[in-house]
Amino acid sequence: MGQASVGWVEVEATDNVCHAQREMFMGDFKGHALPGFFLITLGIWWTTKCVLKYAFKKQKRTSYYDSKALFRRIDLLEGIVLAGMALIGILGGQFIPGGPHLILYDYKKDQWVRLLDWHHFTMYLFFGLLGVTNILCSTITSLPASFNKLMLLNALFVEAFVFYNHTHGREMLDVFVHKLLVLVICFTGLIAFLELFIQAKITVELLRTSLFLLQGSWFWQIGFVLYPFNGGPPWDLMDHNNIMFLTICFCWHYATAIIITGAIYAFVTWLVKSRFTRFCPSEVELLKNAEREQDSEEEM
Amino acid sequence: MGQASVGWVEVEATDNVCHAQREMFMGDFKGHALPGFFLITLGIWWTTKCVLKYAFKKQKRTSYYDSKALFRRIDLLEGIVLAGMALIGILGGQFIPGGPHLILYDYKKDQWVRLLDWHHFTMYLFFGLLGVTNILCSTITSLPASFNKLMLLNALFVEAFVFYNHTHGREMLDVFVHKLLVLVICFTGLIAFLELFIQAKITVELLRTSLFLLQGSWFWQIGFVLYPFNGGPPWDLMDHNNIMFLTICFCWHYATAIIITGAIYAFVTWLVKSRFTRFCPSEVELLKNAEREQDSEEEM
Amino acid sequence: MGQASVGWVEVEATDNVCHAQREMFMGDFKGHALPGFFLITLGIWWTTKCVLKYAFKKQKRTSYYDSKALFRRIDLLEGIVLAGMALIGILGGQFIPGGPHLILYDYKKDQWVRLLDWHHFTMYLFFGLLGVTNILCSTITSLPASFNKLMLLNALFVEAFVFYNHTHGREMLDVFVHKLLVLVICFTGLIAFLELFIQAKITVELLRTSLFLLQGSWFWQIGFVLYPFNGGPPWDLMDHNNIMFLTICFCWHYATAIIITGAIYAFVTWLVKSRFTRFCPSEVELLKNAEREQDSEEEM
Amino acid sequence: MGQASVGWVEVEATDNVCHAQREMFMGDFKGHALPGFFLITLGIWWTTKCVLKYAFKKQKRTSYYDSKALFRRIDLLEGIVLAGMALIGILGGQFIPGGPHLILYDYKKDQWVRLLDWHHFTMYLFFGLLGVTNILCSTITSLPASFNKLMLLNALFVEAFVFYNHTHGREMLDVFVHKLLVLVICFTGLIAFLELFIQAKITVELLRTSLFLLQGSWFWQIGFVLYPFNGGPPWDLMDHNNIMFLTICFCWHYATAIIITGAIYAFVTWLVKSRFTRFCPSEVELLKNAEREQDSEEEM
Repeated sequence: MGQASVGWVEVEATDNVCHAQREMFMGDFKGHALPGFFLITLGIWWTTKCVLKYAFKKQKRTSYYDSKALFRRIDLLEGIVLAGMALIGILGGQFIPGGPHLILYDYKKDQWVRLLDWHHFTMYLFFGLLGVTNILCSTITSLPASFNKLMLLNALFVEAFVFYNHTHGREMLDVFVHKLLVLVICFTGLIAFLELFIQAKITVELLRTSLFLLQGSWFWQIGFVLYPFNGGPPWDLMDHNNIMFLTICFCWHYATAIIITGAIYAFVTWLVKSRFTRFCPSEVELLKNAEREQDSEEEM
Repeated sequence: MGQASVGWVEVEATDNVCHAQREMFMGDFKGHALPGFFLITLGIWWTTKCVLKYAFKKQKRTSYYDSKALFRRIDLLEGIVLAGMALIGILGGQFIPGGPHLILYDYKKDQWVRLLDWHHFTMYLFFGLLGVTNILCSTITSLPASFNKLMLLNALFVEAFVFYNHTHGREMLDVFVHKLLVLVICFTGLIAFLELFIQAKITVELLRTSLFLLQGSWFWQIGFVLYPFNGGPPWDLMDHNNIMFLTICFCWHYATAIIITGAIYAFVTWLVKSRFTRFCPSEVELLKNAEREQDSEEEM
Repeated sequence: MGQASVGWVEVEATDNVCHAQREMFMGDFKGHALPGFFLITLGIWWTTKCVLKYAFKKQKRTSYYDSKALFRRIDLLEGIVLAGMALIGILGGQFIPGGPHLILYDYKKDQWVRLLDWHHFTMYLFFGLLGVTNILCSTITSLPASFNKLMLLNALFVEAFVFYNHTHGREMLDVFVHKLLVLVICFTGLIAFLELFIQAKITVELLRTSLFLLQGSWFWQIGFVLYPFNGGPPWDLMDHNNIMFLTICFCWHYATAIIITGAIYAFVTWLVKSRFTRFCPSEVELLKNAEREQDSEEEM
Repeated sequence: MGQASVGWVEVEATDNVCHAQREMFMGDFKGHALPGFFLITLGIWWTTKCVLKYAFKKQKRTSYYDSKALFRRIDLLEGIVLAGMALIGILGGQFIPGGPHLILYDYKKDQWVRLLDWHHFTMYLFFGLLGVTNILCSTITSLPASFNKLMLLNALFVEAFVFYNHTHGREMLDVFVHKLLVLVICFTGLIAFLELFIQAKITVELLRTSLFLLQGSWFWQIGFVLYPFNGGPPWDLMDHNNIMFLTICFCWHYATAIIITGAIYAFVTWLVKSRFTRFCPSEVELLKNAEREQDSEEEM
């Protein structure tokens, strides 16, 4: 909150400049909707994959080996999609009209060229590295699978770090909504960091994926707040009541993310169970029940 | 402390408004006593359950299987009570005279309606979600039991987050006592977070439940400080000596919570031991002693 | 550092009052030397005990059972000494000439009585509780041994919390040296907190005990800085160069604490080895060597 | 960022003094290039050693015992090199023309002598202690190997602590680049701290060593920013755009560090595999494959 008030003091001097800057690049609804869409897609997909793995693992005896080869191919596909998303983000940010076109320093004017666009470039770059690592880990079997986690951690760390230094000289509400973004990214990063040390259980993984859903939907919320479309009146960026509202709005986004995660869990578990029951005779069913009993016992 | 002094600067401008607001909703002794009562009840109950489980586990051979079915039914009851508490809190906050009556935005006056009440609504909502998860986990046996922990973490995270953004523009002492609340909630949340990764031992669980006791009794303390009943003179909210006193008062609350936890531990352990000894012959007693020996050895 | 500059602004108003206060209670060299002496004693003792346990564990086969009973009696003694130290600290702080004499609020003058003394009282109280827990855990065998760790964590948490809110309105250097104290206490508390979750290895325990040595010697340093004896000229509390020096002075204290810890490790290991060799024949020696080989392998 | 703005306020008063100070000691390009060179060397070496150990461990059956004796001798060498580096740093800092020449306090002028140089002395001292610990642990076999980790943690903690208190009264950009240094040191320290509690996997170790690479290359970047050689115009230390650029520059340094780490991993793995295949017949090859299968399974 300290920075917010500092920004408030300086804002009068830099207001005009910043406002003009924001108008031009990334500063429209689409610029926030695109990463939001990517993140929500990733969140839903990772939640599905995580529940799928858990459900398959519970029915290990029959289908485990097939599923392992399947997941390896899925990881490869995931890596390609991630790298593709990052490439779209990088090219979209660099080659839109008025973008930096890969020029970093303008020697004529003696100034940096559109540094905020280069910020976005950096974030997409690290998600691209994550995609490349995914591809490498799923094709080269001798690589440790935890390299994926490490690159995810790095991508989140860089994202949080860049967003933290991103909002200098903007209005209070603008800073606040980006602070919340940094908060959720940091928390996701903390979970990914601890997962490097301690083998993750399904609960932790679902927490992480639901935070990706939250991050994605919050990108959309930022877009709605800063660039109200259909010509509505803009939000008062200096009104403290708006901060009070966005505080609880953030929590409601999270409640929605939790409910979506729960729905995916229920649906996928039901799907695997129904598909599996068709193929297995009653003896396997009995074995399965005995195992489930054991599992829940361990968890208690 | 930075925020406190910021609040001190702004307070003269917003003092009248805020005071008026606080008068009307949640801003009386009862509004703090209700959550305090809920939290103390929960704290005592969770401490009892935790010690009970530990004592039963130590005498595993004879009564373990019965106790498991018993605890499942207890969890169901706990979930219903939690959801009921949350419902009371939500309805009480929304439909008291002058409450928001589920209206979020007043389009006539073009302003948000009683956002602080919606803050309380959000907090109760997440504790309600915890109750629902409790009910689901105790009826559907295939759900991992750690989902309860996850929802507890979410409820604590949301509570800390909302309280942190709750006290804008209030007096120094008001901000300070809420800061301490955020501190204890954050610490409880940190423990719940680590419990997701690492199997909790009894000591960690007792630490968590004693912090719930502290949180509940601190709600009462906030009520006493901000709304002194029996017509006594109000506390000077700008006097730094009061902060100095409340610092140690917080520690004494904690000392009390520790002593209560210790008393519950002693009482429940004695109860289980005495009830158990009546039914078991001397051989079992011998076995038990050998086991206890082993347990304490492991712990050393 | 923010608080330091805030304190700098306010200091001119409250300077005279604070200085007068500090003169009278705890505000002399002895008031800092006493807890410093207690902490250094504890640090040296805990280091010795920890190395002793480790050395005995390595030579498990012959003397393990005897050592266990021995350590239980040692813990009892430790608890009594700790409770005694806390009692001395409480009584010394309350009943020195000009102390609060257990009176908290002066209804005549309508103000709190010597709150800084009550701060010290609270800190000693929690170390007293730690002592009582030590006594209980070493006499009642069914209590989990980790309750000691829990109470140690609580004592450290309360100490850090109280010191953090202790230095309002003092001079920059005074605040800075107490900040460093809070830093080392917090770090010690963090280690004790993680030890609740994860079984501690000797390295972690030695880190914790060496931080106690640092804390104790830093108390002495604070005493020397704020109350220079033998009539020397006092330190300039507003000179930033003194902060720059105390930064490295803190590190040198830590280097000394590490070297002392290393010396104790070397001495105790040598003592146990030499005492043990006298009694055991050569076969045991061979077994011991094989075991040590194995141990160091595991650690690699 | 709060400290940055504070520094900005005070900077006009202390600007001349500080600038003069910085000119003379450590305040040139070489003073930053030397630790940067040391850290990059250490980072590359530790990455290589870590991958080497991992590759050898995977081929445990044939060459494990030899490699263990080898690593012990390597550790000894490492310790000697580290102690040597620290000694060069200490002597270089103390006995350059204008250095403090081991004099701490000038009693004639009644002031501290070149405290910033003593800061560097303290940091080198702790890396020297790490070197000594390395030597002791590799010669005395009964010492736990984790003492190395502990001393690494201490060295990092002291480095972060000293740098944090190092930049008082400097310009905004100067403070910012040192803040980033503190950030990366703290993160490295956090990893080393958690490694004390939880046995490190290769991913965590590679993360730690890549952060050393980042730290070293960032030292060079600081040198380039503050002391542009070849007579180029200096950077504007008050321009916020430079902060925006250095934010992403930091991330690009990290991306480079990751790529270098990956290249070392690929090269060393290939080297060990090719060298090993020459000596082992086809049966061992089959065994190896089975083992690798198992390993990757565990990691999934």
